[in-house]
Amino acid sequence: MKIIRSIKEMQAFSLSAKRKGGSIGFVPTMGALHEGHLSLIRRAKKENDIVVVSIFVNPAQFGPREDFEKYPRNLKKDAQLCEKEGVDIVFYPSAKQMYPEGFKTYVEVEELSEVLCGRSRPTHFRGVATVVAKLFNIVSPEIAYFGAKDAQQAIIIRRMAQDLNLPLKIKVMPIVREKDGLALSSRNVYLNPDERKSATVLYKAVREAADLAKKKISDPRYIIQRMKQIIRREKCARIDYIAIVNMSDLKPVKKIEGKVLLALAVYIGKTRLIDNIIINV
Amino acid sequence: MKIIRSIKEMQAFSLSAKRKGGSIGFVPTMGALHEGHLSLIRRAKKENDIVVVSIFVNPAQFGPREDFEKYPRNLKKDAQLCEKEGVDIVFYPSAKQMYPEGFKTYVEVEELSEVLCGRSRPTHFRGVATVVAKLFNIVSPEIAYFGAKDAQQAIIIRRMAQDLNLPLKIKVMPIVREKDGLALSSRNVYLNPDERKSATVLYKAVREAADLAKKKISDPRYIIQRMKQIIRREKCARIDYIAIVNMSDLKPVKKIEGKVLLALAVYIGKTRLIDNIIINV
Repeated sequence: MKIIRSIKEMQAFSLSAKRKGGSIGFVPTMGALHEGHLSLIRRAKKENDIVVVSIFVNPAQFGPREDFEKYPRNLKKDAQLCEKEGVDIVFYPSAKQMYPEGFKTYVEVEELSEVLCGRSRPTHFRGVATVVAKLFNIVSPEIAYFGAKDAQQAIIIRRMAQDLNLPLKIKVMPIVREKDGLALSSRNVYLNPDERKSATVLYKAVREAADLAKKKISDPRYIIQRMKQIIRREKCARIDYIAIVNMSDLKPVKKIEGKVLLALAVYIGKTRLIDNIIINV
Repeated sequence: MKIIRSIKEMQAFSLSAKRKGGSIGFVPTMGALHEGHLSLIRRAKKENDIVVVSIFVNPAQFGPREDFEKYPRNLKKDAQLCEKEGVDIVFYPSAKQMYPEGFKTYVEVEELSEVLCGRSRPTHFRGVATVVAKLFNIVSPEIAYFGAKDAQQAIIIRRMAQDLNLPLKIKVMPIVREKDGLALSSRNVYLNPDERKSATVLYKAVREAADLAKKKISDPRYIIQRMKQIIRREKCARIDYIAIVNMSDLKPVKKIEGKVLLALAVYIGKTRLIDNIIINV
């Protein structure tokens, strides 16, 4: 396994791999890798000749009062995990290289970026779309893998790839959870033991919603109300949003039918966690 | 020569050409080809194995009260010109294919898009950057060719290609002019015979500025004043802007030294024309 830090070198590697007919599977990450990331890497390994994992804590997707500084970073541990999974290249660029002086170009996916998480994180998805477009152009993968935990992100990136005619496939892999249901996230390390216990409330609320939908309850307001009740029982939990939306435009549905996305963000203490489920009735 | 109308087919062609090691030179146009375009095509032909010319009147770069509807279109004539120059592929997509229902992604090059022509055409460069990013992803050229007449466009596209790490080179070729100095433009057909004569005033003003700079006059305000005097002599001319700016950030310079861009836009009757010169003292 090789760690490449230079954009030029990464681009040259990809070009030469492509010329030899090798397909590149790409897993973009911010590091602090967990089993969720590893599930993407394993799938990429199965489906491609070469696997590239990028590790880049992208300043453009953090708001001014967010956790950019304290976001967990551990290249050594991440590299070991990648090596063990048979990753070929870890791409690890510096922020200075990715956003040099005079940088001015942003990719905006309108409407989809403004709702749900975009409401409390107004420049987040612009930062995500921009860095992912850059990484796609640097790595030029055949297939790029994303986790379903970041459901809105996955929908935005799919839209971007389609709208900008990026010649690649996006695959979205299932959420990986702890035994008690908590969705894996690099941010779970922020939780103290009490908060860690409370954090399971997101999944409890998600399960409740799924159960109600299975029982043919089709009124989203009723389901959201029940979820709120569950979450409010936890003292350190504060709801950012709960929404049941259309998969294509992320607009709230009036009735649950077909395939809809139920997504929520909840502060557990100071840590903002997200979870979601696709309901298909 | 082949005319390709399908994005998928174009993308497949490019991929297969790349696999065979062929380099693609790309000339994106809105059709209504003139000697300016042909000079780009000839250069592309010299420097690449394959030449692709796109013809697409891009709705996203026209404002609501601009000339999208009446912009000259003549595929047959354009195709004949391309064929004569040895173009391999004319890529001619429909607007419906380029901007399908649900399209939401735009590429924005901040600051550079808001000044000069961007001031009177506020969404123009967003439309340009977006369609060019799309075309680059569809055609995947090694080199793309642009005309120096659209100086701001060229600077924005260079910035975009660099910021988004697009793996290609941008080449900007000199302005081609009529014998009387008028810069070639597809919009020149809008001019009636009187306006056609008046239109030479843009180049006259540009020449005057260049002469003054050569005489070591370094105050941009003085030069702009002299240009205004020249243009105001023409009854049907109305100045949109005249600016002397830095090549990197398009901000007005206080003193003419080194390499600066002198750019202007002038309405001749209802037709908005642009011209520019790079002054290097």
